[in-house]
Amino acid sequence: MRSKLLLPVALIAMMLISCKQEEDANLAENDTTEIFPKGEKITNSNFVGDAWVQMLITADSINRNSVGNVTFAPGARTNWHSHPNGQIILALEGTGYYQEKGSKKRILRKGDVVKCPANLPHWHGAGPDSEFVQLAITSRVSGPTEWLEAVTDEQYRSDHTKD
Amino acid sequence: MRSKLLLPVALIAMMLISCKQEEDANLAENDTTEIFPKGEKITNSNFVGDAWVQMLITADSINRNSVGNVTFAPGARTNWHSHPNGQIILALEGTGYYQEKGSKKRILRKGDVVKCPANLPHWHGAGPDSEFVQLAITSRVSGPTEWLEAVTDEQYRSDHTKD
Repeated sequence: MRSKLLLPVALIAMMLISCKQEEDANLAENDTTEIFPKGEKITNSNFVGDAWVQMLITADSINRNSVGNVTFAPGARTNWHSHPNGQIILALEGTGYYQEKGSKKRILRKGDVVKCPANLPHWHGAGPDSEFVQLAITSRVSGPTEWLEAVTDEQYRSDHTKD
Repeated sequence: MRSKLLLPVALIAMMLISCKQEEDANLAENDTTEIFPKGEKITNSNFVGDAWVQMLITADSINRNSVGNVTFAPGARTNWHSHPNGQIILALEGTGYYQEKGSKKRILRKGDVVKCPANLPHWHGAGPDSEFVQLAITSRVSGPTEWLEAVTDEQYRSDHTKD
């Protein structure tokens, strides 16, 4: 009788393994929704923590926009900065923070859109527990980004707006 | 002996069903990677087939860029058109086509980036078998889009570049 049970038991074991493998493959495939390459690690002093940028579009004299795909490690953020034509931020993945000078910080999630006004100091980055991936669309019509001081831990941890 | 086999066989059947259900759930969850809303169906005559647009950013006098999330049904496409400052297209999902006047059409897939030169007539849309979702970033610094004739079926079906 034992031998009669061997085949079905072996089949069950095989199926369990195959089911698990398929699940793992699905997880690996859908582990990230990354659309654009992560690019190079940012090494300048305008960021705190680990961040990466892949420039997708460089501004030229006729189409004066740059587009970059920026990935922030948990806790990483830009310094305060401003743009003479403002900036557009499109949140693609993870949970991020965005704050304008004089306002509470906002939580950004996949699909959120920010239009930052011209010359208004602001910063953006990842939340403490999640990577954050965003597109930054920056008009260079009236000049380059002005970089300011670092975001303190107190500012980083400050209250956020209700959303 | 038959009754001894009943339990293992029932177990196998149950596991097959459970495995399939999990797979279906995964598929449903990952059926779409949609980041931005599909928006409103486009009803003007500058498109052939079904297309939807969700405007994410409207140009203003200081940040003169518009950003739209455009979804094309299979076979749908824009008419030929040009932009005085060119256009940036970021492919988010599905398989699309992009063609500039005088060049072969290109296949666009998730993560592909196009910088269309100023005043060069071009069109974009979905391939015949797939929806296509793209961001269109359009500088309005030097004026609005110039709309031209429709893309014929022959043009739509023409050869594409190797990629």
